[in-house]
Amino acid sequence: MKVYLNGKFTDLADATVQVTDRGFVFGDGLYEVIRSVEGTLFRPKPHLDRLRDGLNGLGIHLESQLVDELPAIGRQLLETNGHRSGEATVYIQITRGAAWPRTHTFPEPAVEPTIFLYTAPFEPYRDLHESGVAAITHPDLRWARCNLKTINLLPNTLARQKAVESGANSAVMIRDGMITESPNANIFGVIDNTLYTYPLSSYILDGITRQVVLEIAKTENIPVRTVPIRQEQIPDVTELFFSGTTTDIQPVTILDGKPVGSGKPGPVTRAIQEGHRNMLYG
Amino acid sequence: MKVYLNGKFTDLADATVQVTDRGFVFGDGLYEVIRSVEGTLFRPKPHLDRLRDGLNGLGIHLESQLVDELPAIGRQLLETNGHRSGEATVYIQITRGAAWPRTHTFPEPAVEPTIFLYTAPFEPYRDLHESGVAAITHPDLRWARCNLKTINLLPNTLARQKAVESGANSAVMIRDGMITESPNANIFGVIDNTLYTYPLSSYILDGITRQVVLEIAKTENIPVRTVPIRQEQIPDVTELFFSGTTTDIQPVTILDGKPVGSGKPGPVTRAIQEGHRNMLYG
Repeated sequence: MKVYLNGKFTDLADATVQVTDRGFVFGDGLYEVIRSVEGTLFRPKPHLDRLRDGLNGLGIHLESQLVDELPAIGRQLLETNGHRSGEATVYIQITRGAAWPRTHTFPEPAVEPTIFLYTAPFEPYRDLHESGVAAITHPDLRWARCNLKTINLLPNTLARQKAVESGANSAVMIRDGMITESPNANIFGVIDNTLYTYPLSSYILDGITRQVVLEIAKTENIPVRTVPIRQEQIPDVTELFFSGTTTDIQPVTILDGKPVGSGKPGPVTRAIQEGHRNMLYG
Repeated sequence: MKVYLNGKFTDLADATVQVTDRGFVFGDGLYEVIRSVEGTLFRPKPHLDRLRDGLNGLGIHLESQLVDELPAIGRQLLETNGHRSGEATVYIQITRGAAWPRTHTFPEPAVEPTIFLYTAPFEPYRDLHESGVAAITHPDLRWARCNLKTINLLPNTLARQKAVESGANSAVMIRDGMITESPNANIFGVIDNTLYTYPLSSYILDGITRQVVLEIAKTENIPVRTVPIRQEQIPDVTELFFSGTTTDIQPVTILDGKPVGSGKPGPVTRAIQEGHRNMLYG
């Protein structure tokens, strides 16, 4: 399999970065995952916009033209790797680059950012979308700039691992008594037939699939409140779902061992799933 | 210059890791920096103990014997690189290792952790220890497990960069209205002739130099309270200093543009500095 690294297409096994890469020593970088259906990228623009915002947020200077070229590189990789047919993901990672000596402050003068892309075949979790999954609540231990899609992902990996070790699929993370996100998806809940989700802020990612859910809710006349669900409201939640680029619309039917609502994916979730499938495959 | 990477001594320029290394894609790893004076490591044991705690905390399985061998590898690098004479640092980084495909959950079965060490000549910041430095207050945006010395260091690098761009040397980070740490050191302050520092918890690192400061304070009969300094107490702080492996005992004499106490390093700071120098060089 070929990947793209700093201007070259190379075999994955040969793709290496310097140990001095700030991605490796500081987690100093950003990433995006874009969905591909039959070689067509799903909503690449908002992914690139978010990446640009992140680069600005971290002060990583990557020529705008290089960001513009990323989807074409992704498409070329899909082609080369035989991932143009069927479903796939395009992973993009930018780090501040390799710098020596190691200093917390940014290298001066700036170094060339590291650009890494790969593609992978992707199989949607259709059975889980149908059945729903179990989740656990878990403290949201992340930093206070979760709007930046950085590779500082330890809290996310630890929460997801904890969930899986608990026999669940993922975690519903709680910060200050409020449901924020899963380790790798946004969260929506239904209370009194209204769809709730955490408002855009520095505590959640502005998820592309979250945007899609809000669009569908508008079209389908589902009432929406971008207001956090408080932990004590969980018993009142009749439906709960994760939304994300590879998560799609994933019903959560069991939380901390107790059924959510009827314990089956509910009508709002089903409507959003259908709208999402229409957008993705329509 | 030679570095150590996964069992081999290699030139820094040739030292590379797979793009699939979880250190590179998740910041999934830990590090330590140990001081060397004339080839003798300063307090390697507590550094290794902390590293072991971190490995346990992250669920990275590295044979205990390999951890035991790290100081010897560090000493060999110091020798090879001509860093045995004078002062130097030994940097140790362990990541969970290279794993494919990329998943938030830990690779199953576990992969070999990546072990990376380098040494560098080190010149203490003696002029700054004499004069003191300026700092800014900055929100502590880090996650809730700052007791783990992980390579998820973006909040630290961003805070330090902000401080330097503000014309200061470093940042005094504030969480929930309390002084926690600098981006790369613990913080002590003097109020009413008593030394205050944030208590051990998940919000600060159990710094080796912090331990040394507490030992010296005991020997010198300096009253200590491991109680956080609240932001509103800053005007009452007569002395402030950072403590860290490469920071040493660094007086902060200007905070947010205002003098701390007399605006000069105070007597408690000087006593701690002297005690620290005696331990390090005595």
